[in-house]
Amino acid sequence: MNNFEFYNSVRICFGKGEIAKLSTLVPRDARIMLTYGGGSIKKNGVYDQVISALSGFNIIGFGGIEANPHYETLMKAVALVKANKIDFLLAVGGGSVLDGTKFIAAAALWEGADPWDIMTRRNHATVKKAIPIGTVLTLPATGSEMNGTGVITKWETKDKLAFASEHTLPRFSILDPEVVFSLPQIQISNGIVDAFIHVMEQYLTYPANAPVQDRFAESILITLIEEGPKVLADRSDYNAAANFMWAATMALNGLIGAGVPQDWATHMIGHELTAFHGIDHGQTLCIVLPGIMRVKRENKQEKMLQYGERVWKITEGTVDERIEAIIEKTVHFFESVGIKTKLSDYGVGSEIIPKVVNRFINRGIKAIGERGDLTTDDIARILELQLK
Amino acid sequence: MNNFEFYNSVRICFGKGEIAKLSTLVPRDARIMLTYGGGSIKKNGVYDQVISALSGFNIIGFGGIEANPHYETLMKAVALVKANKIDFLLAVGGGSVLDGTKFIAAAALWEGADPWDIMTRRNHATVKKAIPIGTVLTLPATGSEMNGTGVITKWETKDKLAFASEHTLPRFSILDPEVVFSLPQIQISNGIVDAFIHVMEQYLTYPANAPVQDRFAESILITLIEEGPKVLADRSDYNAAANFMWAATMALNGLIGAGVPQDWATHMIGHELTAFHGIDHGQTLCIVLPGIMRVKRENKQEKMLQYGERVWKITEGTVDERIEAIIEKTVHFFESVGIKTKLSDYGVGSEIIPKVVNRFINRGIKAIGERGDLTTDDIARILELQLK
Repeated sequence: MNNFEFYNSVRICFGKGEIAKLSTLVPRDARIMLTYGGGSIKKNGVYDQVISALSGFNIIGFGGIEANPHYETLMKAVALVKANKIDFLLAVGGGSVLDGTKFIAAAALWEGADPWDIMTRRNHATVKKAIPIGTVLTLPATGSEMNGTGVITKWETKDKLAFASEHTLPRFSILDPEVVFSLPQIQISNGIVDAFIHVMEQYLTYPANAPVQDRFAESILITLIEEGPKVLADRSDYNAAANFMWAATMALNGLIGAGVPQDWATHMIGHELTAFHGIDHGQTLCIVLPGIMRVKRENKQEKMLQYGERVWKITEGTVDERIEAIIEKTVHFFESVGIKTKLSDYGVGSEIIPKVVNRFINRGIKAIGERGDLTTDDIARILELQLK
Repeated sequence: MNNFEFYNSVRICFGKGEIAKLSTLVPRDARIMLTYGGGSIKKNGVYDQVISALSGFNIIGFGGIEANPHYETLMKAVALVKANKIDFLLAVGGGSVLDGTKFIAAAALWEGADPWDIMTRRNHATVKKAIPIGTVLTLPATGSEMNGTGVITKWETKDKLAFASEHTLPRFSILDPEVVFSLPQIQISNGIVDAFIHVMEQYLTYPANAPVQDRFAESILITLIEEGPKVLADRSDYNAAANFMWAATMALNGLIGAGVPQDWATHMIGHELTAFHGIDHGQTLCIVLPGIMRVKRENKQEKMLQYGERVWKITEGTVDERIEAIIEKTVHFFESVGIKTKLSDYGVGSEIIPKVVNRFINRGIKAIGERGDLTTDDIARILELQLK
């Protein structure tokens, strides 16, 4: 096992009715900005529950944070935060709202010239403080409710980048599984595969003699495989919704990645597909991962076979046959929960390949992956394999 | 899944050489009391590493915190804390030193008349503040390094009780697996079974439709079964030590117990065996648990069979045969890592039974366990079964 530091101070309030606890979680004298997205929270009752719980509190709203939250949108919120001396941010939404709110929290107290430096880490820029955040999660998927990471897109340049800081760890996150009941199918499908691939990025690398982390990762994968389809089949199955939600949170809170190698190539390549073509984040991951499993099968062989045996019970055949069966099982799972895995399924052709490759070249990135040997040539091969 | 709140803000610094980080973790201007036990840290080099890392810091020492730390000893430390205006406690030791230090931290700022009320919760006493604590763990076992719980014994009355508070969560805990290299066999054996039974108290109850928690629990059990014997066989096996250490921490940090029923009857009965006969904590748990598995086999049947199948691969035979095999496997594991499971192994006879039963009766406790139906008659039957 590698040395590691683990710190996660997010208070999780999990279960039905927990939104009512907001009044004890948010400081009574705070000047609060409630951040949200396209307004679904006003239709599904969550907004009313939040406002009811915070009756008498000092709140202004900032709606319209879009999927893949835009720097340009968030900077409008930053101006409003400063003008209104906001000292608490309450994010009510899915991963995009939460990620965007983390950026607002950091950018509002940013002392450098350009808050975009938070994302590019230009001159080793790091977040040193942030406005306190609380969250009410409305969509299990990204794990943003229990980490300090935000992924932000600069619309002007189509740059989709990530930052992470302990200062943007939410003070609390309320996870009421009943929010799942009114979600559209595609959001649940995306959530299932997003959480699944968060685990894979931290698990499908090379062995590091870390059996607790490995088995925790497999626990989350198996739970998503078992519970995901139940959520899709019956939106009102509370236990399935709860188990899906908790699995998604556990998938990216630092726990399974502690002391082990991590990959994140699937996300890095996937982000470019979203930036260029607006393909949903979860969908991009399902396009890229099978390609990486094929191209990097030797790098990942030992963990691939362990994954096949423990998650899919694949133990028969030669190594190549088993790996083929493992990739097929994985692809079939993505497709079975409603996510297509080929670029052609999204109307994208081979013209995307040089565009994506050039983005890495232009950023000076020669290779990615857990061994730092997934080159831009590999990226081209991965996308080539996933064309149709 | 039941509703739950999860909050664990302990910063974990895990790995070889991490003790050197103390200088960045402890506030530079703090008045520090370094608490420790019988002096083993002065023999195994940990004390020197700590003092070297904190060169120039303002430190006084308080040694001699015994196993099952005594209220009477700890109150001497409280007096010293007050006299020296100590504002940071650095606990260097195993679970007893850490637990004792948590009590010192709370008792030093206790505003009620009698700090023992913290343990008895007389008049609903609760800890409202505590001196900040950091820890350097020297013995994987109790999980105290990543929770706010302390178990303290009042020697005068032989009362062994537990308290828990968010205020006594360590600010940080340093887990360097190399501390295992110099541990005596009995401490490792006790640590393995202590961690194992911490998991069982939160797992071997009744199903609550919580597959993430269940599988995490099984992950820890399997890791202890696989890695524990490796540690005993080769004290210098770093990876085995690291995996044992991390498994023990994960066993009692709130994660696997979130949203599920918990038992803790094994601990409650075991504490009395320690209080009356000084039997090691881990040993008492291995005496009591098999008795509870027999007497409460119907209560625990579903989870028992799940445990048997997933942890021990026991799938054949009638329910009764499988449960018998499962109990045998569990007992054999305890014995195989060096812990005996019968009262006679510790020179204790049937005279203990009314003494233990009366302790529960005198405290007004009619029944314990996850369903609140393990009666004092059951306690007598459990101890009777474990006589020899």
